[in-house]
Amino acid sequence: MSTILVTGGTGFVGRHVLEALTRAGQTAHVAARRISADAGGDWHESDLLAPLSAAGLVAEVAPTHLLHLAWCADPGSFWTDPANVAWAEATLRLVRAFADAGGRRVVVAGTCAEYDPSAGRCSEDATPLKPTTLYGACKAATFTALSAFCAQAGVELAWGRIFNVYGPGEPAQKLVSAVAAGLLAGQPVETTAGTQVRDFVSVRDVAEGLTALTLGTAVGAYNLGTGVGTPVRDVARAVADLTGRPELLRPTRPPAADEPPLLVADVHAAQAAFGWQASTSLGDGLRETVDAVRARTGS
Amino acid sequence: MSTILVTGGTGFVGRHVLEALTRAGQTAHVAARRISADAGGDWHESDLLAPLSAAGLVAEVAPTHLLHLAWCADPGSFWTDPANVAWAEATLRLVRAFADAGGRRVVVAGTCAEYDPSAGRCSEDATPLKPTTLYGACKAATFTALSAFCAQAGVELAWGRIFNVYGPGEPAQKLVSAVAAGLLAGQPVETTAGTQVRDFVSVRDVAEGLTALTLGTAVGAYNLGTGVGTPVRDVARAVADLTGRPELLRPTRPPAADEPPLLVADVHAAQAAFGWQASTSLGDGLRETVDAVRARTGS
Repeated sequence: MSTILVTGGTGFVGRHVLEALTRAGQTAHVAARRISADAGGDWHESDLLAPLSAAGLVAEVAPTHLLHLAWCADPGSFWTDPANVAWAEATLRLVRAFADAGGRRVVVAGTCAEYDPSAGRCSEDATPLKPTTLYGACKAATFTALSAFCAQAGVELAWGRIFNVYGPGEPAQKLVSAVAAGLLAGQPVETTAGTQVRDFVSVRDVAEGLTALTLGTAVGAYNLGTGVGTPVRDVARAVADLTGRPELLRPTRPPAADEPPLLVADVHAAQAAFGWQASTSLGDGLRETVDAVRARTGS
Repeated sequence: MSTILVTGGTGFVGRHVLEALTRAGQTAHVAARRISADAGGDWHESDLLAPLSAAGLVAEVAPTHLLHLAWCADPGSFWTDPANVAWAEATLRLVRAFADAGGRRVVVAGTCAEYDPSAGRCSEDATPLKPTTLYGACKAATFTALSAFCAQAGVELAWGRIFNVYGPGEPAQKLVSAVAAGLLAGQPVETTAGTQVRDFVSVRDVAEGLTALTLGTAVGAYNLGTGVGTPVRDVARAVADLTGRPELLRPTRPPAADEPPLLVADVHAAQAAFGWQASTSLGDGLRETVDAVRARTGS
């Protein structure tokens, strides 16, 4: 009998994960700072940044499985938010408490930003972890410490490195939603030239991947991407076409400094280890995301 | 005007560091779980593993410089002690509090165990961090997170990777002291064949290096070793000769699994960046260490 504890259940990815767990016939315990009445699961109010909360939460739920998604994720600041360090601490503390209480399997949301961004196509085994942002560094540091700790403590650890996730319910500042909202409102939207190539993966696919990891037995780090690289400008244009206002898109903003030209997942390991692959086409995923923006903004 | 806070001042390396700071004309504030009346410095009782202690300590001392040596270091268990994870958390918490309170420069004791042990000669720039122990993983993780955090917070970070440190006052279970104490007591001492090559560095040199790093301006990771590789058996034999009982040394114990054959520091970066190099000959250092064991055991 397994008891699943999910953290970050009110976040963008977390809400889709709770749906995916429900589809898989699972009822999860969900820890969050604010209890969300409209989502499935058995909710527990907990602020994981508070030093003593993890032990109390774990004692209350007695989880066998932990799916840890909570982390600072404010789209405006998460790359550089000093809270990344506090979240690294909170994650180590939570997993220690989970192991001490007899927990068996932990799955954590990692990020493609852990990799050396000059690597291009990122492979779990071959690409060095060489983060260039505070967010990526704190995720990579947590992975390094937890890998050694869990191996020794006899706790299974699986780590899902999420690539450029997008989808319904994403924060309004993310690329697809920001472009869609502006154009649907009839406003010009300025973007960069967008020549950089990224791995855009649907949040539904990511949620299925994290759910499969949680319910499965694979250990180690796995990329959660599509394996397909798409120039950012192609995504912006597709979104613009979906809004019917492509003429308002202005690719005139200067590029950000140090944008790596290509960052795409090698997806062979995930397929081989737990049979997951992203199945949503970019066209379908973008249409669904733009529809969600349309519904939210009433435009 | 600088105010130096040292943690781990009661430890093996810490006691030598306090002496080196005194020689350099500095009076440090020293944080420790137990106040040691016989050592120099201005002592503060603090348990850094307690969640709220770091903020209180930093508020009390208002340090401009932090030399953080505290970590779990029980010779029997530190490689695998789960407390390594708690020390990673405590270190991140302490440096966050230090930065929040306006601290300017932090120096942390790292370890050669952060490197890929198959690398042989370890260079700060070229050798991947690929720890194979919980101790090495938690140190490497802390370095990764703090490097990004300090760069962003405008705090200078220097990280001294200590190689095989030995010297007067070392824990009784360490190689030199264990061999010396056994032979001085007239007992046979069993060792492995000792073909593995290590970089044995005197604790006095390490203490001078950490002090120079603290008072200097170099940032980044620096190896604290001699650059000279010595087979472990040569150290054991030299110690045996110093005790006058070489015939009691028995190199008959099977080797430990996964002992890397060679682990030696590249020391060019430290010399170039802050003018430090180890100056104690292995013969002098071992003699001093064996003399200290003789004095301690009365043999």
